[in-house]
Amino acid sequence: MIVVLKPNTRPDAVETLVSQLEEKGFKIHISRGEEAMVLGLVGDTSRLTEESFLANDFVERVMRVSSSYKLASRAFHPDNTIIRCGNAVIGREANNARLAVIAGPCSVESREQLITVANAVKAAGAQILRGGAFKPRTSPYSFQGMGAEGIKLLLAAKEATGLPIVTELMSINQIDLFDGVDIIQIGARNMQNYDLLKEVGMAGKPVLLKRGLSSTVKEFLMSVEYLMAAGSRDVILCERGIRTFDSYTRNTLDISVVPWLQKETHLPVIIDPSHACGMSWMVPTLAKAAVAVGADGIMVEVHNNPPAALCDGEQSLTPDVFADLMRQLDRYAALEGRKLLSA
Amino acid sequence: MIVVLKPNTRPDAVETLVSQLEEKGFKIHISRGEEAMVLGLVGDTSRLTEESFLANDFVERVMRVSSSYKLASRAFHPDNTIIRCGNAVIGREANNARLAVIAGPCSVESREQLITVANAVKAAGAQILRGGAFKPRTSPYSFQGMGAEGIKLLLAAKEATGLPIVTELMSINQIDLFDGVDIIQIGARNMQNYDLLKEVGMAGKPVLLKRGLSSTVKEFLMSVEYLMAAGSRDVILCERGIRTFDSYTRNTLDISVVPWLQKETHLPVIIDPSHACGMSWMVPTLAKAAVAVGADGIMVEVHNNPPAALCDGEQSLTPDVFADLMRQLDRYAALEGRKLLSA
Amino acid sequence: MIVVLKPNTRPDAVETLVSQLEEKGFKIHISRGEEAMVLGLVGDTSRLTEESFLANDFVERVMRVSSSYKLASRAFHPDNTIIRCGNAVIGREANNARLAVIAGPCSVESREQLITVANAVKAAGAQILRGGAFKPRTSPYSFQGMGAEGIKLLLAAKEATGLPIVTELMSINQIDLFDGVDIIQIGARNMQNYDLLKEVGMAGKPVLLKRGLSSTVKEFLMSVEYLMAAGSRDVILCERGIRTFDSYTRNTLDISVVPWLQKETHLPVIIDPSHACGMSWMVPTLAKAAVAVGADGIMVEVHNNPPAALCDGEQSLTPDVFADLMRQLDRYAALEGRKLLSA
Amino acid sequence: MIVVLKPNTRPDAVETLVSQLEEKGFKIHISRGEEAMVLGLVGDTSRLTEESFLANDFVERVMRVSSSYKLASRAFHPDNTIIRCGNAVIGREANNARLAVIAGPCSVESREQLITVANAVKAAGAQILRGGAFKPRTSPYSFQGMGAEGIKLLLAAKEATGLPIVTELMSINQIDLFDGVDIIQIGARNMQNYDLLKEVGMAGKPVLLKRGLSSTVKEFLMSVEYLMAAGSRDVILCERGIRTFDSYTRNTLDISVVPWLQKETHLPVIIDPSHACGMSWMVPTLAKAAVAVGADGIMVEVHNNPPAALCDGEQSLTPDVFADLMRQLDRYAALEGRKLLSA
Repeated sequence: MIVVLKPNTRPDAVETLVSQLEEKGFKIHISRGEEAMVLGLVGDTSRLTEESFLANDFVERVMRVSSSYKLASRAFHPDNTIIRCGNAVIGREANNARLAVIAGPCSVESREQLITVANAVKAAGAQILRGGAFKPRTSPYSFQGMGAEGIKLLLAAKEATGLPIVTELMSINQIDLFDGVDIIQIGARNMQNYDLLKEVGMAGKPVLLKRGLSSTVKEFLMSVEYLMAAGSRDVILCERGIRTFDSYTRNTLDISVVPWLQKETHLPVIIDPSHACGMSWMVPTLAKAAVAVGADGIMVEVHNNPPAALCDGEQSLTPDVFADLMRQLDRYAALEGRKLLSA
Repeated sequence: MIVVLKPNTRPDAVETLVSQLEEKGFKIHISRGEEAMVLGLVGDTSRLTEESFLANDFVERVMRVSSSYKLASRAFHPDNTIIRCGNAVIGREANNARLAVIAGPCSVESREQLITVANAVKAAGAQILRGGAFKPRTSPYSFQGMGAEGIKLLLAAKEATGLPIVTELMSINQIDLFDGVDIIQIGARNMQNYDLLKEVGMAGKPVLLKRGLSSTVKEFLMSVEYLMAAGSRDVILCERGIRTFDSYTRNTLDISVVPWLQKETHLPVIIDPSHACGMSWMVPTLAKAAVAVGADGIMVEVHNNPPAALCDGEQSLTPDVFADLMRQLDRYAALEGRKLLSA
Repeated sequence: MIVVLKPNTRPDAVETLVSQLEEKGFKIHISRGEEAMVLGLVGDTSRLTEESFLANDFVERVMRVSSSYKLASRAFHPDNTIIRCGNAVIGREANNARLAVIAGPCSVESREQLITVANAVKAAGAQILRGGAFKPRTSPYSFQGMGAEGIKLLLAAKEATGLPIVTELMSINQIDLFDGVDIIQIGARNMQNYDLLKEVGMAGKPVLLKRGLSSTVKEFLMSVEYLMAAGSRDVILCERGIRTFDSYTRNTLDISVVPWLQKETHLPVIIDPSHACGMSWMVPTLAKAAVAVGADGIMVEVHNNPPAALCDGEQSLTPDVFADLMRQLDRYAALEGRKLLSA
Repeated sequence: MIVVLKPNTRPDAVETLVSQLEEKGFKIHISRGEEAMVLGLVGDTSRLTEESFLANDFVERVMRVSSSYKLASRAFHPDNTIIRCGNAVIGREANNARLAVIAGPCSVESREQLITVANAVKAAGAQILRGGAFKPRTSPYSFQGMGAEGIKLLLAAKEATGLPIVTELMSINQIDLFDGVDIIQIGARNMQNYDLLKEVGMAGKPVLLKRGLSSTVKEFLMSVEYLMAAGSRDVILCERGIRTFDSYTRNTLDISVVPWLQKETHLPVIIDPSHACGMSWMVPTLAKAAVAVGADGIMVEVHNNPPAALCDGEQSLTPDVFADLMRQLDRYAALEGRKLLSA
């Protein structure tokens, strides 16, 4: 950590700060320039915040050199984390590794709907079934999901198809219902619900964490760090679009996050093109971009009858469009030494 | 609600949509133009989402005419909501009504610190004490607050000073600890933690809801609506700065939200200048702006020794600066027929 | 255009507005609902602004149904516009059409540098040479480009390699220098410099217009409309990243803009991955995404010695990396029935 | 300037960089930590860009310590700049200094309209008349202003009322028409039109520079620096709202910019509440906030018949509302030791 002091800082103020830091176990390098004096801190700075220094009025600026996430950092864990879940393998294990494809309806609406869609996405090559039982809706008057009953239907679909399931947990009080769930999803609006992260981190299951609507990549990794500090090893990072000044798409897909995160962390990174654009006709195009930038998987909303969907029909693919997309994406994956479909 | 159909929509598609809507109890006005056909829906559209229409590929655009919040809307409840809490009255009851001033440290750190600050802010004219026991920190390695012990200290400070207390609830599992707390705060990061909102809405206490970092004013009111639909009547809306492209301030204070919300809702609206700018020297200036635009109150961080604060020292005022600010703000309030200090 | 009036608008106010609009030649459809009265305007609304209606206090909201751009709209001109320039063809003419590849240094620095890079990018398959002579720099103290001398060197490079050239025009007073320039570039900071657009629109040359840092897609198309209304037929739209709350990349590549614009306009759309991310190691990844989403071309910064570059060295590819990228991109293009390299 | 190198940078790379910098006249302080090596540069770094260092792959990060603006910096020029213009004085000269009030219609529409409004705003206490002759409109089909004829009418209004005038210049080719204009306005969309800034900087007149829609405060000051480096001494900085994710107001007034800029620069800072919110009913509220935060002036749109205005009628005040506002603002100014109205 580098602390820049203002030009005319009084020597005793410097001394006091330095001795406080030395008491906490840091070594301090002092460098005096014309415009500023610079303190370099050596030691484990992950417990320090930049802001705490700024409460001293003689501190001009603070810059963190090493990252404040450790467990999530590739520097700490150079090899890719590989998450196994049913037949699915999430993360790049080796050349020719399959991408993870997670598909299913936005919300679980009925047994028939879910099984129909589950069979369809399985046939098309998806390895994991998604479906919302607890739904975070902007309006309290919108359909809030089937709740516990929805989880039961997901478990039935899992049994019927053999597909592992991922579904969103919105409150730790629902955790007992999630026994048979394979991957716990934490939604974008809960990315900084730290109490939930701490509890889910202790659940011993893979977690799919969606990036918050206006979360920086560093805040995203700090939320991963909450999960990992609580015990999680298997965290899947999911980019689902961010909020910007324009609204021609539901959100703005920040595609650059994939290479950046893959450099910075050892964890798999996937893209959810459905929520990113919010328009079914654009989903296949963005899915291709996701594969082209090397995402470790995609998560796509599929519905057997989009106009009748209780949620997100406007961004759901029909099973036919999805199956066609899978064949196209497989060719894209091949260009990067990976594949989407089993041989 | 107004639904614009694409120019060449087939008549049978229109018929199907119209009869589906009529079955749900809406009256439909059809207006045919050269460029588009427009359906006007009459009835309670608060359960409909704009998006659901867009799953039909012949729908061009959807526009909501009436607001989707009801309980929070001034149209529904024309008179100002007045919240009483100890000696404090939050909301504009009558001419010369006092503004609510909430002050205290970012986090509760010790009995001595809290009582010292509580006495100081009371002496300066604050009517409500703030202090965090459970702290949402970006890093899991930062100080997370004193937890249950912090709540106990807040209750002790309440007893010692007679000031009602407001403190943040991050998980519904902590609710039992909040028995003696006067106002429950929901933080910006939990503004769309809908499960928490539903539970807190049933707690029978005033709620101070902070606007999310990237929440539109409509989303903000929809989160209020979650609280009110669950039972809350007394909700205080708090603007604390939003996230934009610039970072010279910690957040960007969106001062215009005060007149807009006061027009749209009957609930009191307050400003937190400390989190908005993140720099103690700027807090008094923004507090004046808050009073000038007619905010119903302010919430300010005060610490007896900012450089030693465990959290947010850089944005905390000393008791002296705070006391001086209160006297200045009182003169600003007088220009709008209100006051800050008791006579 | 649809104008929603407030619930209790006085009949005479409605009458006045309607007769004013009828005088301007519009037909008005009136539809009365419980919550609002709606006026539907039929006629050429492109000269009306939404805001002008809002100056009447009884107008609740205004919604444009048809787009306010005409010449740029695909509705007006269904076939793809194809721009020919030297051997380059920009736009999708037919299956197997080549993508346009524009490459070269950020700024022209010397004859040797420019010819070296021009030969290298030509050999790798680029069809158009880029290079800045007039540079828009944030600081007046940074290198501002070689100016007229830089244009001369570009013309020399054009002669030496046969590659057509594109370079940025910042002021209409420079236009005489651009006689031999094949494509005039208007930079992101000048996207709404309307006087410049009007003049350049009369220049009779293809124009490459970069999207502004915080321009909506509609504003982008309105700036295109300025060019076309002034006479331009051949406009190339270039996405180069937008400004958001995060800064881990120089800008945020808004990849979704490609399919959206290609649906909305007949003009070619290209991506500049160099400015989008600002880091050379990420450029190839984003270039793949550009091809995967169907962009009609890419514009890439290439420098023979990036650390010594006077501008943007950190985002410039070396000729070797660029040549390797071209071979990879050719395989991506093939998946969409296009190609990058000549047979 | 501080340059952080990656942990395992090869010694010869460090040596090469250091000797290159020493050749350019910088003194280099090297500080070696566990995590990084840090170079501190002493000398005039205003010609260096942070990015140029990043083209070396062993550079981790670069931080500027001193600001890159000099002429605009208060460090360089500690006293407030005071701009005199007719009877108006812009900038805080002394206690009880008047705030500058600039008022008038969005666009000049006719002699009668302009003289009427000019007389009204003068009577209400405004010291400077505004009015647009050249209008930057999003659509080429919207009213573009009266042009040269509009300037003539402004000069006539100046003669009739004695008020100095400010009006927007969009192209340097119009400069001859601006002979009698007192203050040249550069609009938000041209804030980074550097060629225009350079030319206007040589015009020898005060310049009112509006902050760009998505310009950081540092970019804003760098554009001021362009003007000053070209010769301007008298620059007025105008905040008129920025672009964010929300659109309930036309733009988002960033009120915090006033204290920040006043600390950082010696130049006067004013607020344009009309463009910030875009709704006439909110303008007076934001104007109070502007005075409360210590702005050196305000710029307000006033029209004698807002619903008939050719531009921005929805945000224009009537003369009566404006006159009432002036009386209120005078009381706000008094609280900060200033005044709005002459005694």
